[in-house]
Amino acid sequence: MVYSEKLLKKLLILHHLIQKNEWSLLELSWETGIPSDKLSKIIKEMSKNYLIKLENNKIIWSPADNPSTIRPWGWRLIHKVLVGSTQQVAKGYGPWSIVVAEYQLEGRGRYGRKWLSGLGGLWITASMSLSNEEAALLPIAVPVITLRSLETQFGINAKIKWPNDIIVDGRKVAGILIEAEAFPNRFITYVGIGVNVNNDISLEDATSVKNIVGSIVPRNKILATIIGWFSRIRKLVDDREELVKQYMNNLDTLNRRVIIETVQGTIEGVVVDVSEDGSIIVESKAKKISLDPSDVYKLRYID
Amino acid sequence: MVYSEKLLKKLLILHHLIQKNEWSLLELSWETGIPSDKLSKIIKEMSKNYLIKLENNKIIWSPADNPSTIRPWGWRLIHKVLVGSTQQVAKGYGPWSIVVAEYQLEGRGRYGRKWLSGLGGLWITASMSLSNEEAALLPIAVPVITLRSLETQFGINAKIKWPNDIIVDGRKVAGILIEAEAFPNRFITYVGIGVNVNNDISLEDATSVKNIVGSIVPRNKILATIIGWFSRIRKLVDDREELVKQYMNNLDTLNRRVIIETVQGTIEGVVVDVSEDGSIIVESKAKKISLDPSDVYKLRYID
Repeated sequence: MVYSEKLLKKLLILHHLIQKNEWSLLELSWETGIPSDKLSKIIKEMSKNYLIKLENNKIIWSPADNPSTIRPWGWRLIHKVLVGSTQQVAKGYGPWSIVVAEYQLEGRGRYGRKWLSGLGGLWITASMSLSNEEAALLPIAVPVITLRSLETQFGINAKIKWPNDIIVDGRKVAGILIEAEAFPNRFITYVGIGVNVNNDISLEDATSVKNIVGSIVPRNKILATIIGWFSRIRKLVDDREELVKQYMNNLDTLNRRVIIETVQGTIEGVVVDVSEDGSIIVESKAKKISLDPSDVYKLRYID
Repeated sequence: MVYSEKLLKKLLILHHLIQKNEWSLLELSWETGIPSDKLSKIIKEMSKNYLIKLENNKIIWSPADNPSTIRPWGWRLIHKVLVGSTQQVAKGYGPWSIVVAEYQLEGRGRYGRKWLSGLGGLWITASMSLSNEEAALLPIAVPVITLRSLETQFGINAKIKWPNDIIVDGRKVAGILIEAEAFPNRFITYVGIGVNVNNDISLEDATSVKNIVGSIVPRNKILATIIGWFSRIRKLVDDREELVKQYMNNLDTLNRRVIIETVQGTIEGVVVDVSEDGSIIVESKAKKISLDPSDVYKLRYID
């Protein structure tokens, strides 16, 4: 992977904006060593991905778009410009930490797949200490939380593509990666959520909140809602039935004809159910096959 | 210009090492979000350009190679990982500041030429408030100071290539850029010095201290010596005669046959003298031509 000079300049600028939402153009030029004419051009470009504006020679980043301005009660929020991956950073902090990064060098999804995490998106990992029962429900709870956040904040009608992609009109808007470390009586879970918010989208089967809503949105609306739900995670998983109902109601994958790539080979069939433990039931050639999320490498709709 | 993922990781690592010379491998992996196996590989690679070692799972950066550990009396030292250019950053601080950067996105030399400033080199700008007479001698004083620093610290026998390149065996080891802002009674001068210390060299006509000495050297030896001379700059320029003598004694360009590209055209001839004001006197076709440094775009030896 190679990076442009412009990206490095943007990261350098974000490094300063994170600390202070407002700078005079001259002052930021001084601090970064980027001449002010170039700086103002770059800021204008950044305003396509961030709620940043240049007005009367002042550079202003909306606090609602700067995660560093959030102080969630009971959480430690770590906001960095550049990281290997938020999952990895989160593993260095105790539970009830949220790591937010502006750019990931090694962002990844399930199966270590490269996850593109460009400027303007929301790339977070939340670490939580949960009982085994609570942790077991995360694969169902996290997509529901992500989906609800987009719905309540922006009225977006998103769906879940099994196991836990969040899609709008068939296009991926958010991805989830759940990892955990087991301890005798509990799990330390690392919940990674990547939301395409105001970042540019290069893939055909992806979209962003910006594209759906039609304008740049303040990321903290999503971030604060997600953290709020995580704070109530125990309550949420307590009502297991309601949670499963919500997951199923929003599942886009039921009754769809699919091609599934598994570790053993490829299966074509119709999804007829999702079981309590999160497995998918596919009817193929009059046989019912149960597939665990960890067996499935790729699921593609063909209707 | 494009940059590799590895460079960004190195910048991220330096960002942390600048603050603390010693990290456990695990701790730095946590902070950066780079998995520890990858991190140890990158650290090993960085040890070719920095006095950094990985020992017993500890990452140690020699304080003698970390400019942040220097506290020069009477100066403000600003050490940054990434900047547009040190010249530009220095213009944002008052006089008697030294800006040191590990990497410049827009490093430049005379005529705005791109100056490659890779990891492990010494890229600095010192700003000084000087009288008009003092400032006028900088073009002679700075090459002498740079040359002396290399000589006293490492016994390197460097020469000056007019107007102010520092060369060893015909290869450039350091470059100088002097800029100034004029005020009624004085100049604020910005003296940029780039020394190829432990950085990799890609150009044929360049070399580095590492290559000359045969091993990586602690950059602060050079940095501290240069700052020491700058602190005594008034004394140095007070004895103008001695300074000019030193400049002339170390000038490699006298009596050389050269091709000079000027704004007006190309001249071939022999350098017969350098005048008091820093102009070069070239004898070409039995005519003596005086050239100001600002007229000369490029000077090449042809003997």
